[in-house]
Amino acid sequence: MSDNRTQYLLDASRMPKHWYNIAADLPQALPPVLHPGTMQPIGPADLAPLFPMALIEQEVSTEREIPIPEPVREVFKLWRPAPLFRARRLEQALGTPARIYYKYEGVSPAGSHKPNTAVPQAWYNAQAGVKKLTTETGAGQWGSSLAFAGALFGIDVTVFQVRVSYDQKPYRRALMETYGARCIASPSNETQAGRAALALRPDHPGSLGLAISEAVEVAATHDDVKYALGSVLNHVLLHQTIIGQEAMLQLEMAGDDPDVIVGCTGGGSNFAGIAFPFIGQQLRGGKKRRIVAVEPAACPSLTRGKYAYDFGDTAKMTPLTKMHTLGSSFTPPSFHAGGLRYHGMAPLVSHLKELKLLEAVAYHQVACFEAGVMFARAEGIVPAPEANHAVKGAIVEALRCKAEGRSEVILFNLCGHGHFDMSAYSAYFAGKLTDQSYDESELAMALAGLPSVAA
Amino acid sequence: MSDNRTQYLLDASRMPKHWYNIAADLPQALPPVLHPGTMQPIGPADLAPLFPMALIEQEVSTEREIPIPEPVREVFKLWRPAPLFRARRLEQALGTPARIYYKYEGVSPAGSHKPNTAVPQAWYNAQAGVKKLTTETGAGQWGSSLAFAGALFGIDVTVFQVRVSYDQKPYRRALMETYGARCIASPSNETQAGRAALALRPDHPGSLGLAISEAVEVAATHDDVKYALGSVLNHVLLHQTIIGQEAMLQLEMAGDDPDVIVGCTGGGSNFAGIAFPFIGQQLRGGKKRRIVAVEPAACPSLTRGKYAYDFGDTAKMTPLTKMHTLGSSFTPPSFHAGGLRYHGMAPLVSHLKELKLLEAVAYHQVACFEAGVMFARAEGIVPAPEANHAVKGAIVEALRCKAEGRSEVILFNLCGHGHFDMSAYSAYFAGKLTDQSYDESELAMALAGLPSVAA
Repeated sequence: MSDNRTQYLLDASRMPKHWYNIAADLPQALPPVLHPGTMQPIGPADLAPLFPMALIEQEVSTEREIPIPEPVREVFKLWRPAPLFRARRLEQALGTPARIYYKYEGVSPAGSHKPNTAVPQAWYNAQAGVKKLTTETGAGQWGSSLAFAGALFGIDVTVFQVRVSYDQKPYRRALMETYGARCIASPSNETQAGRAALALRPDHPGSLGLAISEAVEVAATHDDVKYALGSVLNHVLLHQTIIGQEAMLQLEMAGDDPDVIVGCTGGGSNFAGIAFPFIGQQLRGGKKRRIVAVEPAACPSLTRGKYAYDFGDTAKMTPLTKMHTLGSSFTPPSFHAGGLRYHGMAPLVSHLKELKLLEAVAYHQVACFEAGVMFARAEGIVPAPEANHAVKGAIVEALRCKAEGRSEVILFNLCGHGHFDMSAYSAYFAGKLTDQSYDESELAMALAGLPSVAA
Repeated sequence: MSDNRTQYLLDASRMPKHWYNIAADLPQALPPVLHPGTMQPIGPADLAPLFPMALIEQEVSTEREIPIPEPVREVFKLWRPAPLFRARRLEQALGTPARIYYKYEGVSPAGSHKPNTAVPQAWYNAQAGVKKLTTETGAGQWGSSLAFAGALFGIDVTVFQVRVSYDQKPYRRALMETYGARCIASPSNETQAGRAALALRPDHPGSLGLAISEAVEVAATHDDVKYALGSVLNHVLLHQTIIGQEAMLQLEMAGDDPDVIVGCTGGGSNFAGIAFPFIGQQLRGGKKRRIVAVEPAACPSLTRGKYAYDFGDTAKMTPLTKMHTLGSSFTPPSFHAGGLRYHGMAPLVSHLKELKLLEAVAYHQVACFEAGVMFARAEGIVPAPEANHAVKGAIVEALRCKAEGRSEVILFNLCGHGHFDMSAYSAYFAGKLTDQSYDESELAMALAGLPSVAA
């Protein structure tokens, strides 16, 4: 049974040498990705303008284990293996018989799990001779992570940042610039997609889908520029599985085995990172566990979206994937977990939900901040607003255990610290934070506008 | 000789169980602390209104090893043992034959080394039955660390924050509030010292010395309130020695032994933390090393101050200590390393400088930010503005090694991350950061106003 420690550190020699690819264990293959022009399944060549071949191979691979290159592991040592903690003080504050563990990804130089994929993406691009990468970012967690990785491997990074964040959150932009990246407010005048948006509305606040359109356009129209995405795609989720693999080894050290695994979901990558290695175990005949995805009630793709083919961006330039989507034209209301404001969900996460291998729940932001403040006062780490959703989900499970008198083991992913997000906490304490709801008729319209794809 | 790793992690079982007390090894004892009323040496009873007896005993102890209480070590496991890194990419960028190591203290929940002393201070107070603590803070690193520690041990923390920081840097304040602390702009109407300052100047911007006066006054005039200080005092420096002790074990793992040790100095605590265990080794007959204190040119207590008895605060309420001081009425110009804006230097650090056991150098802020940006792009971690001074000092040493063709070993303390300080980086990139100099005539006046103490 469990021991009496609070901290489980892996020796560097035990950092995983492979990523876990859940495609190897799926009972049904993922629906094909479709070409935006032909609506026919795409092949690797269609993705070649955007990504280096090594990443395209990972995108479609069905190998169970994919080696992590040694230079990537070397950089990971700046913060990995990441710690696993037993939340003893939180358990006590809740009076729960549950044992709560959290994996902490805020120890990375960018303060979140995003460098887990930024570093290998930058490395594979550098290996392919790529010197320039474009990407998009909302609040800036992904953009700053790719900027960090680009600096290490000599790649110029250009980031299209959603204008409202660019204007309101200059600190993440300063972080990108510190790493040497160029940060452009989106919509910009540098792309057709951007110019079209500005023509419609000169004070356009931007959206993640639109910033993706701009970044993809630059890569698609320049031979010497590739594109990188921080979530959603199979290879991105693959890179995050190091989180769950480490947690598995650390829980063995603790002599415990999770009954419930909780993660927050925006595009799905940190959630996949913690959950997929455990789901894979189950698919290969191992223990059945409850896997809970927690999403914001203001942008609830898994709980309110439609499982359908859709575009990844606003300008409809990306390939189509089958996923839970609110419609690529859907604009969520403003709320503070900027990393969870995407209209779609990773195809792999969506597929697993359809296969009933995971459950999803949505919470409003005020309740999530309340959970985050409770966590900070008990455990000492201030979570990012995104991570507060996972904290809330874990607390709900722990209180259920209390009500039922069950000492289950709960594992959740604390995917980032909140040091860049203290203005949101200020707003919370000032009583200025409200629960934003999307407009039902706007959602209905966005869903009605989904592309029609022959089954 | 040195191995080929970049990361040196200690197993939790090797976290030091004792702090190192340099008072045990001093060739000459520290000059006595004087009572502000009588100008005579004080005894433990004089400090009792402010501190619990366990901390007063540490303040005057000459025992070499002082045990770290188990509950304190348990909390330390949230981030300790802290990593030691070999800065291989920085070495390469500089083209230096030197081997550069840095100890990274930004992994703590507050993002700096300050919790190393906040946690034991809160714990000893809680053990003594104290339920309320007051303190002061400039930029907020210390205040947020004590707020964090107070939350863990059930102590109400009230922080007097220098008004200019309170107004300009609301994010650290939000961090303190997240941990449940009360944060008051200083000067305030809650103390005599504050009211006197406001009477003179209603828009008083505050100063660290004045905030100390307010916090000390509240503790001195309320039986149920104690006071905590984040630097300068012997017991605070003692608590930081865990940094250097861990670094010593980690350098043994690396098979290396430092020739030069670099730290930034404000009040002196992070510098003492990395340096004292090594200085102690030398005092006991071990290797002689160069120990370099780097301070801001705008507040250069060690390089331009007078070694004399002075007060720790503006209102002249604290005991007098012999230290390098710019005069307690000296107000440094505004610059971005808020943690280095104190008029005095820790008596122990000052004493060691007089004994020629360390050297001091001062750099202006623009050169320090330049060094910090170079470090971030090479190593991936963005340093706090305070830590940029240590980075600058280490780079200067590494370039000297290059010029001299010497492969010395350089160790420096990266005492905190810059995630709360990105506005300073923004200003740097916008070209708005300038090198602030103090007014020579103001310094002369402040020094002329030093209290006269019989030799």
